[in-house]
Amino acid sequence: MSHTDAAEPDRPTVDVTAAARWLDGQVLRTPLLRSPVIDRLVGAQVLLKAENLQTGGSYKMRGGLYAVGRLAAAGHGGVVAQSTGNHAVAVALAARRHEMAATVVLPVDATPSKVARARGAGARVVLAGSSVEERLAVARRISDETGHPIVDAYDHPDVISGQGSASLELIEDADRAGTPLDTLILPVGGGGGVAGACLAASDRPIDVYGVEPVGCDSLAHSLIAGRPTPVPPAATIADGLRPSCVGELPFDILRTRLRGVIRVDDDEIAAAFRLLLMELKVLAEPSGAAGLAGALSLAANGATRVIVGSAAPVVVPGDGSRQRTVGVVLTGGNVEADLVARLATPVLPREGVAV
Amino acid sequence: MSHTDAAEPDRPTVDVTAAARWLDGQVLRTPLLRSPVIDRLVGAQVLLKAENLQTGGSYKMRGGLYAVGRLAAAGHGGVVAQSTGNHAVAVALAARRHEMAATVVLPVDATPSKVARARGAGARVVLAGSSVEERLAVARRISDETGHPIVDAYDHPDVISGQGSASLELIEDADRAGTPLDTLILPVGGGGGVAGACLAASDRPIDVYGVEPVGCDSLAHSLIAGRPTPVPPAATIADGLRPSCVGELPFDILRTRLRGVIRVDDDEIAAAFRLLLMELKVLAEPSGAAGLAGALSLAANGATRVIVGSAAPVVVPGDGSRQRTVGVVLTGGNVEADLVARLATPVLPREGVAV
Repeated sequence: MSHTDAAEPDRPTVDVTAAARWLDGQVLRTPLLRSPVIDRLVGAQVLLKAENLQTGGSYKMRGGLYAVGRLAAAGHGGVVAQSTGNHAVAVALAARRHEMAATVVLPVDATPSKVARARGAGARVVLAGSSVEERLAVARRISDETGHPIVDAYDHPDVISGQGSASLELIEDADRAGTPLDTLILPVGGGGGVAGACLAASDRPIDVYGVEPVGCDSLAHSLIAGRPTPVPPAATIADGLRPSCVGELPFDILRTRLRGVIRVDDDEIAAAFRLLLMELKVLAEPSGAAGLAGALSLAANGATRVIVGSAAPVVVPGDGSRQRTVGVVLTGGNVEADLVARLATPVLPREGVAV
Repeated sequence: MSHTDAAEPDRPTVDVTAAARWLDGQVLRTPLLRSPVIDRLVGAQVLLKAENLQTGGSYKMRGGLYAVGRLAAAGHGGVVAQSTGNHAVAVALAARRHEMAATVVLPVDATPSKVARARGAGARVVLAGSSVEERLAVARRISDETGHPIVDAYDHPDVISGQGSASLELIEDADRAGTPLDTLILPVGGGGGVAGACLAASDRPIDVYGVEPVGCDSLAHSLIAGRPTPVPPAATIADGLRPSCVGELPFDILRTRLRGVIRVDDDEIAAAFRLLLMELKVLAEPSGAAGLAGALSLAANGATRVIVGSAAPVVVPGDGSRQRTVGVVLTGGNVEADLVARLATPVLPREGVAV
């Protein structure tokens, strides 16, 4: 469950097992939830790992805590992070726990609740620009001035390892319940979480899929191109899945290990959000609901998959038929109340529910 | 953890421990959830037992499954129940699991999703009247015709025992976590759940409180009067807490064991609903959120408490100051999407959130 590149001996190791051991007792071991309605719609047993119930409201707490904790142990007095939301909150909370200074760079149009959560955790919040590049430039300047290292949201071995611990717990708990996973599905932003999932699953026969919003599919483009390939960010309700490009380290892991990418649109994400809310009784943010949207799409539509792991990646029609036990990581639950109210009721008439 | 009345030797025993043993593996052992924001608002550690995540969407599954299961074991081929919602769904699901016939009597204005859930579980649904008395008369007629016994929603020893198993799990898990409860709070409809909680807590120094919506406070009136006392049902968003009178068997348990009643209004219930949704990331129905509303009221306002257990019950100003670890049972999560959308955003400007 670790990854090193023989060609680059200085590259740090990504080790999900070590992160999981370090994080044991530091984060919640979130429950696996199930719904008979969701099982029926997906046509498989679906085990949903409720990381929306994690401290800080998302699985980003795992990577943030692991990365920041190791920096604290190495003697650093502070950290810098840039993010549109959950990673910034996670780093702020992690820094507070380790009594370190934290500066987080958020976009000028950041959602008020995420700004409030980062400030509430004691971080200095800097609002700067609206693109990743602008925020990164500001973060680098602050890092140079303060000497505090940057904790990247996904292109960082400890962040990938920490995020991967959520998938490892899901895999282990599914084994323990006598329902080992065939399939594991996560949403893709910068690719850190799904890269960690691939490493967590690496010694088992589990197909790992990433889910990208239509138009925010940098990973799909990157897998076809064979190198990280940016796409101009499109509009999506899944604000956490909009990085313009998958990270280099995640891509390096994903290009040989990922089974495929599933693309979902806003309507599919909204439908998954409603299923989680009304049937599973939990609040996911749209980015967090994207994994379930992907599971539904894979099962129902034979979603287009980008098959990787061959010299020349090929795009083939999908086949969800062999899914028996599907794991989905509900990555986060930090969402504005207005959006909840808007998404809770469908625009179109909805079929009746049944238990 | 059991209750019998020496004066009435034929009255069946209410035994929470036996029910918990019977239900082990039959229902989900739902997780205890926490939120630092809720802890701060209540001024205590608050352990929330997420029975909204229970099979069937409410803790009514426990009492329904235990009562129906024992009737199945006794050779009955079917059951009859009347309810405004969750108990009917629970009995329907329990009957299906035991391959029994189920007839459930719901009010003519029952919420469509509860009708759909009961039908989806295979029950025959009869829509009749809008009062408990009308539905009970129809249920009795059907019971006479079919020979299938009625499973009352709260005035039934196995139902009280089953519901009590949720409180027993909460108490045990709090002990195991090293944070034993001082206080245990549940919403009150017919009083079955809170009566079960009193029995579950009976060998420990835990104050048990019931929460009633303003105007639906039959238990408070009954404790003062010394006998079950109906109140004309008032309007409340907590539709599950509107029985016009507490049950006789629950009252018999509660009159000597309950620490007090906390009255909450719709605004307090709606605020608790939002806290659960936006901070804890779970969907509770308003009736399910009423327990947290009671915990907030007890801590913040020194809620009026009806002190029982003395010859002459007295009403005194409350004192929440000695709460250190408060257990709250989130009893259910079955709610209409329209109401979720309406409750998700507050009418008044809301204070900023902080982690």
